[in-house]
Amino acid sequence: MNPTAFSQDEIEALGARAEVMVNALGAISAEPDRLVRLFLSPEHRRAADLVARWMREAGLTVSEDALGTVRGRLGQGRCLLIGSHLDTVIDAGKYDGPFGVIAGILAAGHFARAGMTLPFGIDVLAFGDEEGSRFPATLSSSSACAGVFRPENLALADRNGVSLGDAIAAYGKSATDIPAAAYRREDVAGYVEVHIEQGPVLETRNQPLGVVTSIVGQTYLNVELLGEAGHAGTVPMLLRRDALAGAAEAMLLGETLARETKGEVVVTVGRIAVAPGATNVIPANVVVIFDIRSGSEAARARLVDTLKAGVRAIADKRHLALTITSTREVATTPCHRHVQDMLGDAVRALGVEPVRLNSGAGHDGQAMAKLCPIGMLFVRCRGGVSHNPMEYASPRDLGLAVAALIGFLARFDPGRLATTTGP
Amino acid sequence: MNPTAFSQDEIEALGARAEVMVNALGAISAEPDRLVRLFLSPEHRRAADLVARWMREAGLTVSEDALGTVRGRLGQGRCLLIGSHLDTVIDAGKYDGPFGVIAGILAAGHFARAGMTLPFGIDVLAFGDEEGSRFPATLSSSSACAGVFRPENLALADRNGVSLGDAIAAYGKSATDIPAAAYRREDVAGYVEVHIEQGPVLETRNQPLGVVTSIVGQTYLNVELLGEAGHAGTVPMLLRRDALAGAAEAMLLGETLARETKGEVVVTVGRIAVAPGATNVIPANVVVIFDIRSGSEAARARLVDTLKAGVRAIADKRHLALTITSTREVATTPCHRHVQDMLGDAVRALGVEPVRLNSGAGHDGQAMAKLCPIGMLFVRCRGGVSHNPMEYASPRDLGLAVAALIGFLARFDPGRLATTTGP
Repeated sequence: MNPTAFSQDEIEALGARAEVMVNALGAISAEPDRLVRLFLSPEHRRAADLVARWMREAGLTVSEDALGTVRGRLGQGRCLLIGSHLDTVIDAGKYDGPFGVIAGILAAGHFARAGMTLPFGIDVLAFGDEEGSRFPATLSSSSACAGVFRPENLALADRNGVSLGDAIAAYGKSATDIPAAAYRREDVAGYVEVHIEQGPVLETRNQPLGVVTSIVGQTYLNVELLGEAGHAGTVPMLLRRDALAGAAEAMLLGETLARETKGEVVVTVGRIAVAPGATNVIPANVVVIFDIRSGSEAARARLVDTLKAGVRAIADKRHLALTITSTREVATTPCHRHVQDMLGDAVRALGVEPVRLNSGAGHDGQAMAKLCPIGMLFVRCRGGVSHNPMEYASPRDLGLAVAALIGFLARFDPGRLATTTGP
Repeated sequence: MNPTAFSQDEIEALGARAEVMVNALGAISAEPDRLVRLFLSPEHRRAADLVARWMREAGLTVSEDALGTVRGRLGQGRCLLIGSHLDTVIDAGKYDGPFGVIAGILAAGHFARAGMTLPFGIDVLAFGDEEGSRFPATLSSSSACAGVFRPENLALADRNGVSLGDAIAAYGKSATDIPAAAYRREDVAGYVEVHIEQGPVLETRNQPLGVVTSIVGQTYLNVELLGEAGHAGTVPMLLRRDALAGAAEAMLLGETLARETKGEVVVTVGRIAVAPGATNVIPANVVVIFDIRSGSEAARARLVDTLKAGVRAIADKRHLALTITSTREVATTPCHRHVQDMLGDAVRALGVEPVRLNSGAGHDGQAMAKLCPIGMLFVRCRGGVSHNPMEYASPRDLGLAVAALIGFLARFDPGRLATTTGP
């Protein structure tokens, strides 16, 4: 019997088990009526304890690092890391994060139970700070594992004035142990993460699983247009310097440029500030923030340049003063070609077409990519909805994802990605 | 000597006198650092007393009605009413309102001093509630004079919970006398008002005076677009239902349609509400309010219809749900043709080209038009700035306005507008 060939019944059973575990973690919340599980909180502790129990039951050896990341080890040799996170946004869904940890436990447990020895070790990692919901920083846990944790972040405070350093101490850990949480490069073969898509692409393509090609890079362009306030009744159209009309034109330009890339770049304006902001006053001052993301550094840079030039032309034409500031620049994180291919092969072996797609959202893989080659497997979620209690993935899709991860582990060859992390 | 022919020196002197009076009223404020003079406040009282003194000094007989409107009577017979208002916005300029009252006093005083008897009486009216800065209503004073005061407004409360009825009592008046403030139609020949333009048209045309053709009508269209929130990184452009992008397109359509009317209609969006309003979330819900004004009822109605249809098409194309509500409908108030012509003749006699223009802002004339034919003379103000301490009109322009009003009084023929109020 091939231990990585699954019947439909076995996939259903894996999915049912995963769903039970997702629900069990989803019940651990700081609030009775919505899911809130913050980094280094009592709920983090409870979730970590449950995960540690599951790991032990699956045959893994459990430890915990200075940031509370739970690690379940199987086998020995250079390690393939399989991880995701236990923390949530405020009023979260149950799948975002926990399912990746659960998939890792179920997959590693599958090999442990079958008594199969892999040519590499496995560490299943349950991180605690991917969402950044508690402190004004993110990816602390995975950054510590990757050896890129910034000690200055220990001073960052949460809403109650508690610093990250104090929260670590209150969790029973010591910040002095953070450097020891870092893996040595030579001990690590790669990092792989299973996650719900948090977008609608797989659902639209009618496919349960996707192989991530890269985690998108991101630019925030802060565009401020300065015109002249005036009476909405007394200033003729041709004498106006309406900052909001200019912003409207700029927003449509951003949308048009993004559409022209045919999926390569997405551009969003999610907030806009208008002053003075009275119904009968021509707006003098408008600030919009363009959120620009792409799996291609070149495509993103090209769009940013074209958008800046276009906005400048709009401002000139409308006699508006203009300030453009880039307030965020995050480079694209490519997924390793071999990891992608092995994930794709494993998905295909299940009779499923592996859709290739970007991750438009951030993930722990962005930190882990500083350490080793990475890859990600996406699972279809209903309506693309995430960060919302309506978040849902079907047990069958969860089962397929666990089965694909098992197939990936059976195929994975650490030697194939020793030399390059390139896509 | 023609008592309505003025030398440049005489115009300068009239302007200098007007400026002194504008400054005197501008010094009466509830706050030391900015001009605030609210309806029925102690500052209203002080301003009304000063105006009454000026009226008496000019030879007028002074009375005050139940809403505190100061009335200065000259001569007898059917009355031409000359008015404007003493109340201000918060942090106001000095000219908006007071100059119209001052021009009336100086013009009436001119005839009194010259001993010239006009074939009609004059009432100079100093209203107290044009801006609506204290109570959530406006034009109370002129509505009382016109016989269209709404008794239910007596229950309206200011920010401190004081009702209009109580404020009238505290001012030493009685609400039961309001009906007696109404002029009888047969006693009134017309209403004329001098006011700063509050817009840039005269300055742009390089002319000091303008004859108003109508006070514009106004529609507020409340447009709500409902799309779907989504992650700014994970939702492909073609799967988005971005309410803000739809609103941007709608705003530009409003601007384009207004420009196509070549000055007949102005359209403004001054405020916009975006939800959820996070940088990295595609907007689900946007509300914009279109402020649409025109001197032509037909042109405004046409634009409103075209805009509604266009916004519907935008919403359909973008799969956005749409609600359009009209939250304000104010009809155009035409100025009487004869009043316009006599004002124009008086301006021309000063060697000045009388620019014809709309009033894009509201005025007491809108209430007075319910009583009698109206007309308005506009004075250039610097930069079109109003409702702002930077508001400014040059003494020379003020002098020309007073001289034009005097010339108008010399030309005015009550018999010419007995039968019609049409433009």
